[in-house]
Amino acid sequence: MSEPLRVAMVGYAFMGAAHSQAWRTVNHVYDLPAPVRMQVLSGRSATAVAAAAGRLGWAEHTDDWRTLLKRDDVDLIDICAPGDVHAEIAIAALAAGKHVLCEKPLANSVAEARSMVAAASAAQASGVRAMCGFNYRRVPAVALMRQMIADGKIGTIRHVRASYLQDWIVDPEFPLVWRLRKEVAGSGALGDIGAHIVDLTQFVTGRHLTEVCALTETFVKSRPLPSSSAGLSAAGDSSAFGAVTVDDAVLFLARLGDGVVGTYEATRFATGRKNGLHVEINGSLGTLVFDFERMNELQFYSLEAPAEQQGFTRILVTEPTHPYMSAWWPPGHLIGYEHTFTHQAHDLVRAIAEGADPTPSFADALQVQLVLDAVARSAETSAWTRVEEES
Amino acid sequence: MSEPLRVAMVGYAFMGAAHSQAWRTVNHVYDLPAPVRMQVLSGRSATAVAAAAGRLGWAEHTDDWRTLLKRDDVDLIDICAPGDVHAEIAIAALAAGKHVLCEKPLANSVAEARSMVAAASAAQASGVRAMCGFNYRRVPAVALMRQMIADGKIGTIRHVRASYLQDWIVDPEFPLVWRLRKEVAGSGALGDIGAHIVDLTQFVTGRHLTEVCALTETFVKSRPLPSSSAGLSAAGDSSAFGAVTVDDAVLFLARLGDGVVGTYEATRFATGRKNGLHVEINGSLGTLVFDFERMNELQFYSLEAPAEQQGFTRILVTEPTHPYMSAWWPPGHLIGYEHTFTHQAHDLVRAIAEGADPTPSFADALQVQLVLDAVARSAETSAWTRVEEES
Amino acid sequence: MSEPLRVAMVGYAFMGAAHSQAWRTVNHVYDLPAPVRMQVLSGRSATAVAAAAGRLGWAEHTDDWRTLLKRDDVDLIDICAPGDVHAEIAIAALAAGKHVLCEKPLANSVAEARSMVAAASAAQASGVRAMCGFNYRRVPAVALMRQMIADGKIGTIRHVRASYLQDWIVDPEFPLVWRLRKEVAGSGALGDIGAHIVDLTQFVTGRHLTEVCALTETFVKSRPLPSSSAGLSAAGDSSAFGAVTVDDAVLFLARLGDGVVGTYEATRFATGRKNGLHVEINGSLGTLVFDFERMNELQFYSLEAPAEQQGFTRILVTEPTHPYMSAWWPPGHLIGYEHTFTHQAHDLVRAIAEGADPTPSFADALQVQLVLDAVARSAETSAWTRVEEES
Amino acid sequence: MSEPLRVAMVGYAFMGAAHSQAWRTVNHVYDLPAPVRMQVLSGRSATAVAAAAGRLGWAEHTDDWRTLLKRDDVDLIDICAPGDVHAEIAIAALAAGKHVLCEKPLANSVAEARSMVAAASAAQASGVRAMCGFNYRRVPAVALMRQMIADGKIGTIRHVRASYLQDWIVDPEFPLVWRLRKEVAGSGALGDIGAHIVDLTQFVTGRHLTEVCALTETFVKSRPLPSSSAGLSAAGDSSAFGAVTVDDAVLFLARLGDGVVGTYEATRFATGRKNGLHVEINGSLGTLVFDFERMNELQFYSLEAPAEQQGFTRILVTEPTHPYMSAWWPPGHLIGYEHTFTHQAHDLVRAIAEGADPTPSFADALQVQLVLDAVARSAETSAWTRVEEES
Repeated sequence: MSEPLRVAMVGYAFMGAAHSQAWRTVNHVYDLPAPVRMQVLSGRSATAVAAAAGRLGWAEHTDDWRTLLKRDDVDLIDICAPGDVHAEIAIAALAAGKHVLCEKPLANSVAEARSMVAAASAAQASGVRAMCGFNYRRVPAVALMRQMIADGKIGTIRHVRASYLQDWIVDPEFPLVWRLRKEVAGSGALGDIGAHIVDLTQFVTGRHLTEVCALTETFVKSRPLPSSSAGLSAAGDSSAFGAVTVDDAVLFLARLGDGVVGTYEATRFATGRKNGLHVEINGSLGTLVFDFERMNELQFYSLEAPAEQQGFTRILVTEPTHPYMSAWWPPGHLIGYEHTFTHQAHDLVRAIAEGADPTPSFADALQVQLVLDAVARSAETSAWTRVEEES
Repeated sequence: MSEPLRVAMVGYAFMGAAHSQAWRTVNHVYDLPAPVRMQVLSGRSATAVAAAAGRLGWAEHTDDWRTLLKRDDVDLIDICAPGDVHAEIAIAALAAGKHVLCEKPLANSVAEARSMVAAASAAQASGVRAMCGFNYRRVPAVALMRQMIADGKIGTIRHVRASYLQDWIVDPEFPLVWRLRKEVAGSGALGDIGAHIVDLTQFVTGRHLTEVCALTETFVKSRPLPSSSAGLSAAGDSSAFGAVTVDDAVLFLARLGDGVVGTYEATRFATGRKNGLHVEINGSLGTLVFDFERMNELQFYSLEAPAEQQGFTRILVTEPTHPYMSAWWPPGHLIGYEHTFTHQAHDLVRAIAEGADPTPSFADALQVQLVLDAVARSAETSAWTRVEEES
Repeated sequence: MSEPLRVAMVGYAFMGAAHSQAWRTVNHVYDLPAPVRMQVLSGRSATAVAAAAGRLGWAEHTDDWRTLLKRDDVDLIDICAPGDVHAEIAIAALAAGKHVLCEKPLANSVAEARSMVAAASAAQASGVRAMCGFNYRRVPAVALMRQMIADGKIGTIRHVRASYLQDWIVDPEFPLVWRLRKEVAGSGALGDIGAHIVDLTQFVTGRHLTEVCALTETFVKSRPLPSSSAGLSAAGDSSAFGAVTVDDAVLFLARLGDGVVGTYEATRFATGRKNGLHVEINGSLGTLVFDFERMNELQFYSLEAPAEQQGFTRILVTEPTHPYMSAWWPPGHLIGYEHTFTHQAHDLVRAIAEGADPTPSFADALQVQLVLDAVARSAETSAWTRVEEES
Repeated sequence: MSEPLRVAMVGYAFMGAAHSQAWRTVNHVYDLPAPVRMQVLSGRSATAVAAAAGRLGWAEHTDDWRTLLKRDDVDLIDICAPGDVHAEIAIAALAAGKHVLCEKPLANSVAEARSMVAAASAAQASGVRAMCGFNYRRVPAVALMRQMIADGKIGTIRHVRASYLQDWIVDPEFPLVWRLRKEVAGSGALGDIGAHIVDLTQFVTGRHLTEVCALTETFVKSRPLPSSSAGLSAAGDSSAFGAVTVDDAVLFLARLGDGVVGTYEATRFATGRKNGLHVEINGSLGTLVFDFERMNELQFYSLEAPAEQQGFTRILVTEPTHPYMSAWWPPGHLIGYEHTFTHQAHDLVRAIAEGADPTPSFADALQVQLVLDAVARSAETSAWTRVEEES
């Protein structure tokens, strides 16, 4: 067993809680090359971070993330803070020789993302690793989908159909939380959930979006100011209103090369859809369908089955031979949302231990950022827009 | 093209309407060896039968079914009247040299059913055919289920799990229609819908129930008398009440030989289940599941699929290669309840034209009756009861 | 009872068979103000039309549709021929004082559609009626969807999400049937199935698409020539190839006014999707979802339900109080594809008898045509394109 | 914050791993009155238990559970060993003043269960608590189901329909693991999974089974001996065979008083059903349906909804107002199997801290045992059998 991997985490809201559950669990479920230690939690409010550290299981806490850089007992910095601080923290951490796991979207702008890629690239030379946290890649059904596509199970890809539907701000009285302010969040549905379906469809198909045509809409243009910005669940109690400066919904068409076409939609106004990440890929030999609200299932249609028996097969992705699942329970015993983070932690720890680069890399995340940027520009100009390629 | 097959029908309520739709349609959808003519409709009320004949498309009508026996222009008598008159009409019709299609259950008692079998057997010698109308055998998905089991797709059968759930008398104010009176209907859920799951499971598995243990329950023991007995939809408007003399629900365990075991349930008190005929068969190599409320689908699980891709396949049974479907619409264009009667009419007409015996025969229907009789006796005696076998 | 309505039909392939089933059935299921008579069938091949007339139940037949115009015993002409002849026949029929039912899409060009609208308008003055056959409006679940939206059940509409997915030409060996040739079919997936989702979403929301941005794709660019063009199911047996001159797939974004946004997709390359017409409408108070492959069901989510009990309700649209359903079977007994045509026939016959204009009118169908035209132009120019409005 | 609750656990196979995950997590997700400490793990093999303690997160380990009794630093003993040792350990632990959590089924015989109840009763006087681990009660959807029934949402109960379907021994080459040997496991499907549906249906309905009629079947009567008995996943590699001495499947009818009737089935031979715990309760006003393979969902049909909008509502039980869910993720972010144990741990720790008796008590578990005993006797005698009541 090698030395323990000592983790520091910045941020302790929704994402911080999910990552903490992963760090607490990963040692005990997987046979890791290095044990994980939850060393220190960082946050802006000294009081709040102290409480969070206790609750979430971190040994220490600090209200200044810069102190983490100098500590010898921190090997990895896990960034769960809002997007506007990703670049600064990640670049500093990498420069300090700390491995970095950074939540998606990588940054609030392409420029920031580029500087993060440069930092990661520089650090890589000295064995420092950087990874972006697109956790949905680690849903076993999604990993299986990728594998089946790579194995040719659906043949030549024709169509990508992706939507990420939520409804948490349908109520116009829902307050103006940070996720609805462009200066903090960068964008609305686009960066928050649209980023996931861009990454996920590129991941499973092995293709990139090359050109997009988008529209965005903000249905509710002003909202009550929140008393405090406590994440998704904050309730407004103020009579003051502020402008919503991000998109409530984004819709776009895409080309993915070689004639592959796609429709994409991300919205927070699809009443009744709670975390409706839905992806369908049609190929010349079959189709695969994933819906996060039934995350333990993958639908598969194969033209190679006997003609009279063809149909959509609901694969319950809980068999020990399915990706990530040998560590968990017997078949039919479901796993949940948080497990995606445990799988992510597993893959990251193993990559670090083995001296390999974890994926998605910062460069992968920059490419997603370039897609989001093209989408945003397309929506502004009402024109088909090419996705920039990094040289 | 041979001579037309001239049909007379007795009864014109729910079943009469469904059969009429089949007789009107079968000529035009299938390439039949003989065209069907809807010659005459018979019913007890002269006024009502006249109206029904016009509406349902019968050329003539009569209020005396006995007159049908002597008519040279009637080849087949289709009995859609309640169960208490099946035996008398069927036996007379067969003796008069008319082919007979008799709705299920064949009779209200085993004794009656036996005399009908004897009549059918005697008539068969002179080429007269008799068939019992278990229409659910003609759902394409059910026919496919039988075929797949016969082809060994699910291996050795272990479990049969059948239920037929309805809810049309959950309301205690629903009136005492004829289906709730033992002297007319013979039994309640048992003969009306239980008969279907007995026949259907025997049909698809190719096995017979040999032993049963049952309970019956009548949840609402008295109901308002109806002003008229107009079938399923009659509304009560009387202050007088009468006793419900049939079972509201019947549940039974069964053995089907060679270690095969089954659970059966038929009820009219399963709130929300409208026509919930549900059958699951587990075998050593796979499972098949059918649910009438999604009658165009068949679920199939196969251990012979690659391990990581196993799951329940939802076969949309609308391909031209599926049973009965080549006559209908392109794939994905559903068919409905009434089509089962059209398929039944097709099979019957073809059998008559080809000089073959249609199935299910009266003997098949008697065997179902013997199962129902064993169930009823088991419920009375609270004991496991063997199903009698005809010698 | 008024005089019978005598129908002539032009065309007898897939649509002709479906319409025939409706004309045969509508008298017997609904209590119509006028009985329908299936007077004469018209088609180009004298031999084929004679056979079809016999099979489909038409009293007479002709190989010259022009003869229909002069017959006194023809009241209505039902046009089921390919789109390239719609305009000529419909205009002549209306001029001859015949009511017209014309299959969708109304015409292969906006110009033709406009001349048809003019003809219908002129004929209307003398009580002659014209209707376009968008049969999916008559799926009971779709009619219920429209009614619930009109009743405010889902509040202010935000999102429309519509796709019509088929897979019948995934195989590159599938022959070049008439539906794949622009000069006959006008367009590919766009006019054939895209037209349905445009009409259906406009019908249920009561809104019009005002602006679109589209892409089209032809995945398989040449195909074997068919030996005969027998519709959907033709098998190619020739070594000669021809160019596919229509779209295999069309994807578009749309604005529907007042901030309502939509995604639309029609394709024949969605492997495993047989007749996957899927529509979801999100509103401020709820959501409605329809999928034709489960056409007897409507999904409804309501924010007005008690919070802990909210969810998607699967309404089985088979209750007598549901649109069109009182004429059919008891609850839970499904109907099929063809019933939409019977409902359409019912509505048309009733409108004619009552001296009312049936819907969708030719003007409604022209408006759909204008949307399709904007989509086609948008795909060509790769630009957002406004839908023209008729003055 | 009170003193920590120091836990010792006996057993570390499948159940031990699940309980460990719960003990590791419960502190960090819920705001507990007392922190939990994972003090010591006990198992028969010194080597294996050492490895397991490290992997599962226990501070210490021992190969002699008796040593736990004397330790001052153990407050609670969690028994995850096979059923044949439950009684001995539990009784000793309670006598030693340790709280006890004992996996289900409580014991392998009614006599043992009775002695455990007596021990729990004696210990209760001095504030020592005993609980039996029927974890499925703590699925949020199940807890919601109970609450809705108690609130009268489905009215008077008529029908209970419960099955627990698995398929892990369909292969006749699957070895003779301890769960297939009566002397260790007590029974087969009956005690292992049948116990769960008995408890669960009694829990949600608030009713007891009073009378049962059962059959059992052992489809594969001998199996290869395993090389080691490592739980569910052991692979046989021996040429020696041994007799299967437990039931592969058990089916029973039940009466639950006041006319309520039920069907129950537990089997390990339902090919394709992995952990198919399925329960449907029909009442006079509605129906509730739960299926563990979609454990985050609850289906609800209500006659109190507007007539045209009635249907089965799929409640996604992930809202913060749903039982246990406020501690987890935003709506639509699923939880998994292991969470039921975390909820169980939460309820137990809270009960201990508050000086309350946790449920299900040993007496509750004895009552389940009495039902299982009646089922076993009924299967042996082929007769309806009354469930004994404890005085």
